[in-house]
Amino acid sequence: MSSHTKHRKERVGTVDYDTQIREVRCQLVDQLKVLDLQLEQKTQQLQDMTDYLRRRGEIENEYARSLERLAERFTLKIKRKDPGNHSVSQVWVALLSQTRQESRDHCRLGESCSNLLVQPIIHCLEYTQRLAKKSKDLCSQLQDGLLKVTTELQTAWRTYFQYHSEFVCAEGKLREAEKQEEKQKQSNSKKLERLIEKKQIKVQEIQLKCSKARNDYLLNLAAANSSMNKYFLQDISTLIDCADVGYHLTLGRVMQAYLSRRVVAQQKVSTGLEQIQEAVSELDQGRDRDVLLQEHYSTFSMPLRFPYQPHEGDRISEVSIESETRCEMETRFKQIQTRMKAVTQESEEAHTSMSAARSSLLEGISDDDLESNSGSSPPQEGSNENLSLRSNGTRRRANLQEIENLYFTRVKEFLVGSSLESKLQAKHDLLKEAVEKEASNERKPR
Amino acid sequence: MSSHTKHRKERVGTVDYDTQIREVRCQLVDQLKVLDLQLEQKTQQLQDMTDYLRRRGEIENEYARSLERLAERFTLKIKRKDPGNHSVSQVWVALLSQTRQESRDHCRLGESCSNLLVQPIIHCLEYTQRLAKKSKDLCSQLQDGLLKVTTELQTAWRTYFQYHSEFVCAEGKLREAEKQEEKQKQSNSKKLERLIEKKQIKVQEIQLKCSKARNDYLLNLAAANSSMNKYFLQDISTLIDCADVGYHLTLGRVMQAYLSRRVVAQQKVSTGLEQIQEAVSELDQGRDRDVLLQEHYSTFSMPLRFPYQPHEGDRISEVSIESETRCEMETRFKQIQTRMKAVTQESEEAHTSMSAARSSLLEGISDDDLESNSGSSPPQEGSNENLSLRSNGTRRRANLQEIENLYFTRVKEFLVGSSLESKLQAKHDLLKEAVEKEASNERKPR
Repeated sequence: MSSHTKHRKERVGTVDYDTQIREVRCQLVDQLKVLDLQLEQKTQQLQDMTDYLRRRGEIENEYARSLERLAERFTLKIKRKDPGNHSVSQVWVALLSQTRQESRDHCRLGESCSNLLVQPIIHCLEYTQRLAKKSKDLCSQLQDGLLKVTTELQTAWRTYFQYHSEFVCAEGKLREAEKQEEKQKQSNSKKLERLIEKKQIKVQEIQLKCSKARNDYLLNLAAANSSMNKYFLQDISTLIDCADVGYHLTLGRVMQAYLSRRVVAQQKVSTGLEQIQEAVSELDQGRDRDVLLQEHYSTFSMPLRFPYQPHEGDRISEVSIESETRCEMETRFKQIQTRMKAVTQESEEAHTSMSAARSSLLEGISDDDLESNSGSSPPQEGSNENLSLRSNGTRRRANLQEIENLYFTRVKEFLVGSSLESKLQAKHDLLKEAVEKEASNERKPR
Repeated sequence: MSSHTKHRKERVGTVDYDTQIREVRCQLVDQLKVLDLQLEQKTQQLQDMTDYLRRRGEIENEYARSLERLAERFTLKIKRKDPGNHSVSQVWVALLSQTRQESRDHCRLGESCSNLLVQPIIHCLEYTQRLAKKSKDLCSQLQDGLLKVTTELQTAWRTYFQYHSEFVCAEGKLREAEKQEEKQKQSNSKKLERLIEKKQIKVQEIQLKCSKARNDYLLNLAAANSSMNKYFLQDISTLIDCADVGYHLTLGRVMQAYLSRRVVAQQKVSTGLEQIQEAVSELDQGRDRDVLLQEHYSTFSMPLRFPYQPHEGDRISEVSIESETRCEMETRFKQIQTRMKAVTQESEEAHTSMSAARSSLLEGISDDDLESNSGSSPPQEGSNENLSLRSNGTRRRANLQEIENLYFTRVKEFLVGSSLESKLQAKHDLLKEAVEKEASNERKPR
């Protein structure tokens, strides 16, 4: 039990009951005011909660509508023309689909906030008013009972005071009479004796009455203190509890429902993000290129080989070496061989250079800063930093174009070189075959 | 390698080179168109992505601003008056603080979308144009090279055709001359012999030329086919790859950055929701009541006990039993004892009834449906259901008021009963003490 139940520091000296009861009355009146204040606060809290949920509902709905419109705008485009099976399109589709899912989730949350979650709070507002009123009425009744007990205490105390005064007075008179009797021992003692006897009876009578009154006072005093104890230590708490019935329960339930909706939405977002992540990790330039080639099959498919078309009656379909051309052919073969060796080496080198250029191009492209570190630097420095970053960016982009040019120079070198190589290779192979055949023919006796 | 590289089904019969080369030319022109188309698609994709991110940034910023305003509205209220240490206020504070956190997270996401994430895509748009142009130029150059090879093939083929025709013609003439020689064996054979000899030399000459031309044609044919192979099987892929450099990389990086921001925000939301959850699970009606009592300490603290105030000179401060009142007091004690037993039992019963009434009140209060099951029922039925739910709701609320009344009747019974009990108990205890003292005095010899 909290410290409010401790007795207030005993004041020096005693206070009469009137003053004490007047103070209690003030406390009791204040208590009713606090009950009113508490109702006001709870009403405000519930009203705030309702406002929050309603406004939050609107905000969620607006957000959901915006996301919906955003997703719809691009989805229509996709529908107009099939995005195909490109991995980039798959990422895009996943992003839009997650956006739509998010829109639906926020829409659902918005609906919940605006309707389902607000209802119990509105009900709570209603019964909280009723319970508070009932609780306050009951509090007043108990206070009346308490005040009645204190009135009884005062009455009993006054009665006791009166009887005891009378007793003191009667006893005083008896003592007076007894003193007088002693002084006037001689004369008319008979009369005095009777008087004293009468007074003694009266004193006894009053003493009995006084004793009864004191007992009554003591019992009422105990009852009053016990009632005060009970009211302050138990009843007030019980009454506040009665007024609070359902308040915590309802707020707890509504918050719990809000939280569980949020948690479900969170899980859906996580799933959606994972799906995007999956699509992103499947981004594949090579696959997309093959898909493109496949999509334009007739444009990119290998045409027919050029066939050998001999002139009518010509039965020779191979490179032929006559004795007259043998020397010339062998020379030509050797020249091609030499040239090919050089060209092959060149195009290998070109390939290496091309790869290197490609790497540095990719590096240059990845140079865009995607980490926001603006938060870690003070804003004033930040603006300078931004400026220098921007000029860095311009320099970087100029630099990038140089790298691009270099890259394409290398690509051209490689492609032209390797094309030459493939032509030479084809000629070389044919000549080699012919030369070797000729050589073997020569070894055979003709 | 994908199936586009397979040779097209060999057509029946041979096609002359002109037709075949004309078809290849068409393919080559189409390829350049596809490259343009691909650039267009990539540009569109990047443009869409930029639009998405920019608009998403705006949406996130709007949402963040709305949440910020929502939180601010109630936070100002809290600042105006301290919410105190009530558990309900703690939930409220947690909810507002999570709302602010969410606002900041969405603001940050919005900023990222609008600036940091869009930048690389804008750069990508720029270099994608440049790379595509370069790639297309290079493609044209390679195509020119390819066409040159086919022209060489045609030239070589024509030369071979010409020489072979000449050879056939010369050989024909030689055969003619030889036939003639046989017919005219007798006359001027010398002249004819010389003519034949001349023709033979010419045939040999032409045959050699023809052989050279055929060899040249065969070599050019091989070179042309090899060039075609290389161009269609490798170069085109390489050129598309060159045009695509950085496209997948950049989209991947941007998406990855977007995802990582979302994941971080998700974690923050989870943490925030956990904090609300914690506050909700600490909702405590009893503690809030004690806090209220503590906050209004002077109003709810126990006043001083009413002291015993004896009349001047009265030294008795206990219930006293005289011989004259003994019988009366004992009777009174027994009456109180009997009454107390009854009252105690009554208030115990009242307490049980009160608890039961409280339980059914809480049950009635928890009757609000917080589960949205509208999704599982078709809309038409749903509206009927809503109607019946609403009338159910009205009935339930009327019912709830009855339960409230019953509850407060029970509370009143309990509080009034237990107050009476506590008064009786106090009196009973005093009387018991006095009666027992009197009894023990009696046993002692006076």
